[in-house]
Amino acid sequence: MTESQVETGPESGGRAGGDDTPLAFEDPTYREAMVDLLGVIAYGEISAFERLAEDAKLAPTLEDKVAIATMASAEFSKVDALRRRLESLGADPFAAMAPFQEPIDRFHDHTAPADWYEGLVKAYVGDGLADDFYREIAAYLDAETRDLVVGTFEDSGHAAFVVDRVRAAIAADHRLGGRLALWGRRLMGEALIQAQRVAAERDALSALLAGGTDRPGLDLAAIGRMFARLTERHTERMAELGLES
Amino acid sequence: MTESQVETGPESGGRAGGDDTPLAFEDPTYREAMVDLLGVIAYGEISAFERLAEDAKLAPTLEDKVAIATMASAEFSKVDALRRRLESLGADPFAAMAPFQEPIDRFHDHTAPADWYEGLVKAYVGDGLADDFYREIAAYLDAETRDLVVGTFEDSGHAAFVVDRVRAAIAADHRLGGRLALWGRRLMGEALIQAQRVAAERDALSALLAGGTDRPGLDLAAIGRMFARLTERHTERMAELGLES
Repeated sequence: MTESQVETGPESGGRAGGDDTPLAFEDPTYREAMVDLLGVIAYGEISAFERLAEDAKLAPTLEDKVAIATMASAEFSKVDALRRRLESLGADPFAAMAPFQEPIDRFHDHTAPADWYEGLVKAYVGDGLADDFYREIAAYLDAETRDLVVGTFEDSGHAAFVVDRVRAAIAADHRLGGRLALWGRRLMGEALIQAQRVAAERDALSALLAGGTDRPGLDLAAIGRMFARLTERHTERMAELGLES
Repeated sequence: MTESQVETGPESGGRAGGDDTPLAFEDPTYREAMVDLLGVIAYGEISAFERLAEDAKLAPTLEDKVAIATMASAEFSKVDALRRRLESLGADPFAAMAPFQEPIDRFHDHTAPADWYEGLVKAYVGDGLADDFYREIAAYLDAETRDLVVGTFEDSGHAAFVVDRVRAAIAADHRLGGRLALWGRRLMGEALIQAQRVAAERDALSALLAGGTDRPGLDLAAIGRMFARLTERHTERMAELGLES
């Protein structure tokens, strides 16, 4: 919480060089929000790695296992850049991640896939939702952090694999489609519950969305529209899998 | 034992251009052995990934978790080149891996770490042993496959982390040292049992070591010396961890 004070003295104002970090980082609340944001994304990636590696056990074939393990490794490979960015902000990366361990672990504990297909849908829909949410937040960041955050979510190209497998399975067993549609709603609900909890506990992060004296923010109507967009994209993803939402 | 022996057969003399693959692969047994070898290594890496990801759950801190997850990802990142090499040999990579799933899974089932430290010792000693073994075999391969196999085992630089953690834990609790020493012996024993099983079932792979009409191989005495070297290196690794073997 207080590490933010390290860099915010007048000394830090003189930084130069191709990004707009220096000015933004004079605001201790902004820096704190950055540390929170990078921390939550980093822990989210570590956690996604763990859960995908766990889901790989459910894979019906070795080829499926390798596909899901590739997704796991792709998530994990993003941690390093986030870690380095946190260090460049003078923050301890692990301390930055710590506050988000509980809500993210709780999300995963409450959405442990019962089978391979629930795991696939979770990988696709859950990660997509998290990516969309961070992308929305990224609009309120300095350019350098924004590029890092948006780069984290570049599609690793494994989506086609998931869509293919889930659609084939639903075609073969229509009842599976009903179960997975319910599962998708549960993922969305649980994600919102945990996001709300994080927002309630991390003032700086919420303040980032709400804006500041020198930064535009979101009013309640805009936050409402943001959630409408997130829900819409969730619906699109479910539809791509051949599922109602 | 020396790599030079591989190249001394009359057939290998005329090969040029830094790649002696073509002629070696005219021997169907040799090709079959290559497919087996690349298959067993690839499945071994996938399996190491899975087990390390599993062990990451036991990590006492987030930093430890990231360290072990980094090792897991490093193992997995090696699968792709092995897969491509198998494809270039006209083999289905997953079919090539399939025969080794059972013995490797059995090895892991019989050596599931009871705690974080058993997991660390297994990562260090078990993977080291496998690497040594494949490196011994690599001496009997064509240059291109040998480079690929040896490259697979380049130290990912995480060894220092394991040595550091295990030594500190033993210093703090001497009884742990006794338990981990026994654990190391069990890992070695189980690895030998499964390796023997593979050798018994995969004729081409054993034939690679035994040699052929046009290829030098190992007689029983040489195989004995190879196992002596593997045991010696195992002892060295245990000693580095501060453990008797």
